[in-house]
Amino acid sequence: MSRIITPLLTAFRRNGEVDYELMDALVEKIDSFHVDGIFPLGSTGVFPWLSYDERKRVLSIVREKTKTSIYAGIESSNIKEVIEYGKYARDLGCEYVVVTPPYYITPGPDEIGSFFRTALESIDLNVFIYNIPQFVGTSIPLQLVENLSRNFSNLAGVKDSSKDIRYFSRLISMPDRKIKVYQGQDDILLPSLVLGADGGVCGTSNISDAIVSVRDHFDNGEIKKASEIDINVINHFMDLLNSATFPSGYYYALYRSMGVDGGYRVPMIEPEDAVKKSIDRFLRDHELLPGNKR
Amino acid sequence: MSRIITPLLTAFRRNGEVDYELMDALVEKIDSFHVDGIFPLGSTGVFPWLSYDERKRVLSIVREKTKTSIYAGIESSNIKEVIEYGKYARDLGCEYVVVTPPYYITPGPDEIGSFFRTALESIDLNVFIYNIPQFVGTSIPLQLVENLSRNFSNLAGVKDSSKDIRYFSRLISMPDRKIKVYQGQDDILLPSLVLGADGGVCGTSNISDAIVSVRDHFDNGEIKKASEIDINVINHFMDLLNSATFPSGYYYALYRSMGVDGGYRVPMIEPEDAVKKSIDRFLRDHELLPGNKR
Amino acid sequence: MSRIITPLLTAFRRNGEVDYELMDALVEKIDSFHVDGIFPLGSTGVFPWLSYDERKRVLSIVREKTKTSIYAGIESSNIKEVIEYGKYARDLGCEYVVVTPPYYITPGPDEIGSFFRTALESIDLNVFIYNIPQFVGTSIPLQLVENLSRNFSNLAGVKDSSKDIRYFSRLISMPDRKIKVYQGQDDILLPSLVLGADGGVCGTSNISDAIVSVRDHFDNGEIKKASEIDINVINHFMDLLNSATFPSGYYYALYRSMGVDGGYRVPMIEPEDAVKKSIDRFLRDHELLPGNKR
Amino acid sequence: MSRIITPLLTAFRRNGEVDYELMDALVEKIDSFHVDGIFPLGSTGVFPWLSYDERKRVLSIVREKTKTSIYAGIESSNIKEVIEYGKYARDLGCEYVVVTPPYYITPGPDEIGSFFRTALESIDLNVFIYNIPQFVGTSIPLQLVENLSRNFSNLAGVKDSSKDIRYFSRLISMPDRKIKVYQGQDDILLPSLVLGADGGVCGTSNISDAIVSVRDHFDNGEIKKASEIDINVINHFMDLLNSATFPSGYYYALYRSMGVDGGYRVPMIEPEDAVKKSIDRFLRDHELLPGNKR
Repeated sequence: MSRIITPLLTAFRRNGEVDYELMDALVEKIDSFHVDGIFPLGSTGVFPWLSYDERKRVLSIVREKTKTSIYAGIESSNIKEVIEYGKYARDLGCEYVVVTPPYYITPGPDEIGSFFRTALESIDLNVFIYNIPQFVGTSIPLQLVENLSRNFSNLAGVKDSSKDIRYFSRLISMPDRKIKVYQGQDDILLPSLVLGADGGVCGTSNISDAIVSVRDHFDNGEIKKASEIDINVINHFMDLLNSATFPSGYYYALYRSMGVDGGYRVPMIEPEDAVKKSIDRFLRDHELLPGNKR
Repeated sequence: MSRIITPLLTAFRRNGEVDYELMDALVEKIDSFHVDGIFPLGSTGVFPWLSYDERKRVLSIVREKTKTSIYAGIESSNIKEVIEYGKYARDLGCEYVVVTPPYYITPGPDEIGSFFRTALESIDLNVFIYNIPQFVGTSIPLQLVENLSRNFSNLAGVKDSSKDIRYFSRLISMPDRKIKVYQGQDDILLPSLVLGADGGVCGTSNISDAIVSVRDHFDNGEIKKASEIDINVINHFMDLLNSATFPSGYYYALYRSMGVDGGYRVPMIEPEDAVKKSIDRFLRDHELLPGNKR
Repeated sequence: MSRIITPLLTAFRRNGEVDYELMDALVEKIDSFHVDGIFPLGSTGVFPWLSYDERKRVLSIVREKTKTSIYAGIESSNIKEVIEYGKYARDLGCEYVVVTPPYYITPGPDEIGSFFRTALESIDLNVFIYNIPQFVGTSIPLQLVENLSRNFSNLAGVKDSSKDIRYFSRLISMPDRKIKVYQGQDDILLPSLVLGADGGVCGTSNISDAIVSVRDHFDNGEIKKASEIDINVINHFMDLLNSATFPSGYYYALYRSMGVDGGYRVPMIEPEDAVKKSIDRFLRDHELLPGNKR
Repeated sequence: MSRIITPLLTAFRRNGEVDYELMDALVEKIDSFHVDGIFPLGSTGVFPWLSYDERKRVLSIVREKTKTSIYAGIESSNIKEVIEYGKYARDLGCEYVVVTPPYYITPGPDEIGSFFRTALESIDLNVFIYNIPQFVGTSIPLQLVENLSRNFSNLAGVKDSSKDIRYFSRLISMPDRKIKVYQGQDDILLPSLVLGADGGVCGTSNISDAIVSVRDHFDNGEIKKASEIDINVINHFMDLLNSATFPSGYYYALYRSMGVDGGYRVPMIEPEDAVKKSIDRFLRDHELLPGNKR
């Protein structure tokens, strides 16, 4: 049984401040989709644009609101901050934490190893490592994942958002694999499941439960049905969301689907009209607007 | 029913000359794997290193030897040469021709369009277009594929070797798709089939029929079995073949599997010893050496 | 008269803590090289690995120690943090602040514009913008630099570390240019000066004053002499420093040149022995070790 | 004294056929600019789009027409073709031949070495190797250039079109360098000369002699004047020429400057109107149209 985890968007007010009430409502909506976990403060949750205090408050709100597993994003290039957030997440009762390699100064393979080892040693909680080379500059070496997996019992898994299915399939085919492997791109979930993926971290599940259906059909052996939703709904939705600079399309679609007039924290910019209209049409056609929710 | 097509290696003698006798034997072996087509003079067939006369002779030898469908590689940056090879392939009785965008001088989207339009207008045969951005410098725009497909009834399909599963799935989900979409990477075949791919152009089928089994299991609804071969055999074999500069690993494995002491045309270089040993071990373990062929 | 600015290394103790005493000594040494400014907390100063408090303390120590102009690095993806550091730098009496585009989540051109506009509006000090696409993922658009320059009188200049001399020369040839343009790569300083650069931000000036000589010779019209030092000393030194993962080579060379046994904050790793030996040889040959300092 | 070499455009008629008469006139015009050599059949000369016979005829026409040194482009991925063109160029009396690494199938460092060694051994003429990673996929390793230079007395030099000034400066600072190093980008010529470049292969010299003036001023020690032309003329001209897909801007500007209605061989496409107007304006402002030629 594979898992769908929602990388939680961090809702904003028109003035760019975090809208904690809207986040409350969002967590409630996501819970109604029956996902298997919520991942606050990932890339879609724009962690690098939030302050220390905002990050803590988001975590605590989500923990209060939901009983589903929490995968707490504790990413930073500053290892001490990673460890501090990790302690905070554990004290809150989060089930997992998620760590990227250090970013901005592009790390080599050994630097990624040093960083992850320090995190795994210092954090008393199950850890997911997060591969996102488009933002970090390098991919986590497969050999390193294997080594860490042998040496740290609190390494719970890898989330891979690289879009590189070859890399992903090598994670899956790791010898004596004990760790979970999650796909980070909604529209690559189905091909990943057929390879043996343990689940996906799927941004569209902030707005729609279509990706949950893909997973359900696959788990029931209904490949054709899964493939149809993937090809006809997920691909198209992802293309629309990604037609504006990441992640503004997600935020626009979220606000529309919640019926609110939300905001865009600097440096995020509201998508242009053509993109907004296309997203509106998709949301209406798939009954994802407030008036017509299923 | 999806198709497996073999991108035929161009066998060489120790002195670097084409070994036409060995190619005869290779075509015979591939036919015994029950593939659905042979694609001579693709990238794996090192077309850019062959002369005009060698390319013609390879085509005619394959046509004489096999009754399976031939997808004739007629790639060149010189459009007149493409058209000339196209006529030659048609006169020989090949079923399809395969064309890349022009290369070396990186084409823009419009230049790719102009090139393909001229080819499709001038060649009186079914044409596959071949996406291989790692060698051409740009990907064939999805919109262009759609336009060509609407305007040219002799556009038979696309072979995509980009390794980009997102791009591939967009080819599959093209509205009112009438053209075939083939995966060009063996280890991405299975995820592609689940998305609805019409088949694969699979280099390992020069040496082993494992990829044919993956396809067979998938077509029979035995996803688990397909996935096991993919994960345990195909992934590993591809990694070994790609551990030397492309395509020398394929050539070494071919020569070993045929029990001959073949050669490497300039600029290709025989893989180093460590790579050779790993490939040897794989071939022995999977009974792909001459003495122990199944 | 062009300027040399030193991007200050942040010295560490063996245990990874900031070594403020060593930084004091380092600022004193750099002052003895007669550079025209010090830029603490840039990429070479590993700002992303430091805490909020460490960054403030580094700034205040440098300000106390030197009378040369300070270009305070106030980079963050969190715009509020940028503004807060900016106020701190102004209150300290720093002459300039330096801002990168937001990083990790790759910004588009408009997002960079929004971010810089907010920073320029909110910071009551002269601002340098810092182009470093290898870490940010995109280059600052030339058109944006021009627009900002027309609209913000506190935009003082651009530091370009892209290594792209074509981009750099377009900065230089901006119509009615009023802002300064500094080269961020030591070994590209001389070609930049000939194009009209206003100076360079040169990492090797933490260790050696060779780059100051290059500038002096150039300003005196002694191109040949400048070119000789560039070709024979700077190029070689840069290659050595960059032969380990950035910026560990700089740190090793710094510690050796100061005669101390310094440390490497996670995720930085001490260079391997071969690199260390090559750097040692260079330092000895150029009399940059403590015993033989000029 | 540094050299300017013109990478000759291959002029076409409206119908896409080579316009040998126009090439005659073009060679005459280029000779009037007092360049130091002509390089037919380079990238700007679109060699990959020409047939075997066309390439030979272009070479022989240029040889008949000019007494300046000829650097004959003999590029191919097929090493036998390289050697054959090399013999043809020698028999014609060309002074040099120019060879790229094999392309399309991306070569590794060793494959480039094998290819160049075979070419240098087999061609009885002075050879330039041509670094153009944007079209080949890899840069010629610096260590390989050094090795070839030690072992082949007929290696005359390197033309570097990589735009990478760091790479270029390492070519210049090669120990005991005996080979020539030429810059392949007009707008990087001046910074290259200050580093010690032996000259440039400059596409704008098909149309204008401005780049010859840059070189002349530099050689006379008039750096400021050289820099002014570079910044005010060359940069701008290059940006215009490159605002259409390479090399169509060069062809449009050529035809306009020669007062003819030339053509664009497939896959090249005439630039769009906005680009054409900008180029027209530049040509008029710099008196490069037929009526107002200096």
